Amino acid sequence: MSKGLLIVISGPSGTGKGTVCAELLSQTPELAYSISATTRQPRDGEVDGKNYYFLTKEAFEKMIGEGGFLEYANVYGNYYGTPLGKIEERREAGQDILLEIDTQGALNVMKRCPDGLFIFLLPPSLPELERRIRGRGTETEESLARRLGSAKKEIEIGRSYTFVVINDTVRQAVKRIKAIMVAEHCRRDKEELIDEVLE
Amino acid sequence: MSKGLLIVISGPSGTGKGTVCAELLSQTPELAYSISATTRQPRDGEVDGKNYYFLTKEAFEKMIGEGGFLEYANVYGNYYGTPLGKIEERREAGQDILLEIDTQGALNVMKRCPDGLFIFLLPPSLPELERRIRGRGTETEESLARRLGSAKKEIEIGRSYTFVVINDTVRQAVKRIKAIMVAEHCRRDKEELIDEVLE
Repeated sequence: MSKGLLIVISGPSGTGKGTVCAELLSQTPELAYSISATTRQPRDGEVDGKNYYFLTKEAFEKMIGEGGFLEYANVYGNYYGTPLGKIEERREAGQDILLEIDTQGALNVMKRCPDGLFIFLLPPSLPELERRIRGRGTETEESLARRLGSAKKEIEIGRSYTFVVINDTVRQAVKRIKAIMVAEHCRRDKEELIDEVLE
Repeated sequence: MSKGLLIVISGPSGTGKGTVCAELLSQTPELAYSISATTRQPRDGEVDGKNYYFLTKEAFEKMIGEGGFLEYANVYGNYYGTPLGKIEERREAGQDILLEIDTQGALNVMKRCPDGLFIFLLPPSLPELERRIRGRGTETEESLARRLGSAKKEIEIGRSYTFVVINDTVRQAVKRIKAIMVAEHCRRDKEELIDEVLE
């Protein structure tokens, strides 16, 4: 049994990570989603224990103290973190696992799990990124300006990822991510595939 | 413009390289096929200048002397070679190029072009490999025994390739190879993709 993939999907705020990951999961039932924890307020339609674990600041900091996170970061005043859970055990059992995290979190996971597939989701252009964040309708003008201001810096971080996927349409982005998963299995499972034929 | 991929599809004799490459090319019009040269006899339906350049031994050896091959090998008494042609110039212009070669040839190309995508096409089982070679109907019992005898050794060589793709069905094998191409573009074109968005 080959080790499962750790697929880390990340990108600047507003690039559409959540929509792409939801579509990827619906098309790929064998993929397990690692639910992040956050102290930010739920957006419309977001469900605790499904989209995120919504925690109080106190509960989050207690979990930090107990070493309960693979990584965590404070982004624009809110905590975001990846609960360690049983990520490595599940991968050893052959399970592919999906993480959706911000760029700061991804850089931390790169250090802890260098065998992850780090996929940077790129908006097709900066004006389109602004349009998407405005369309979400959850930002004040101040937080919008702050997010756009840091987008260029965040996009530069994409150079340190393994893969860059343009999110021009959700369909195309999901297709590319699925291709990356297939290709990585052809790469990483090669010894196992050969052993099976020679047995 | 990112450099085009050099896709090297290889595997043991009888594993179905020719059929898979033909289907891949028909589904991927933007992929250019690098036609090999050989001194073996054409099989039914094979066309000179399309499937292979069929050369005499003398013509092949003259081309060796002129440094005209990326690699060449003598397999079961016949020469097979990859004409240098304009492979590198075409890749620099962004063209993806497909090579279909035997395992001996692929090992030589690995040394000359370490940035190639080396895809080992694996039969689903050894009995199935024998069935396929028999089905081709072009082998004597002697050459069949020789090919099967070397198949296990050839399959071991697959461990040194970048990717292993099982040729269980042509459709599935082609789908996996196309996924590898998409994924490698997401990997290798990442700087270009980021530059375009930041421009």
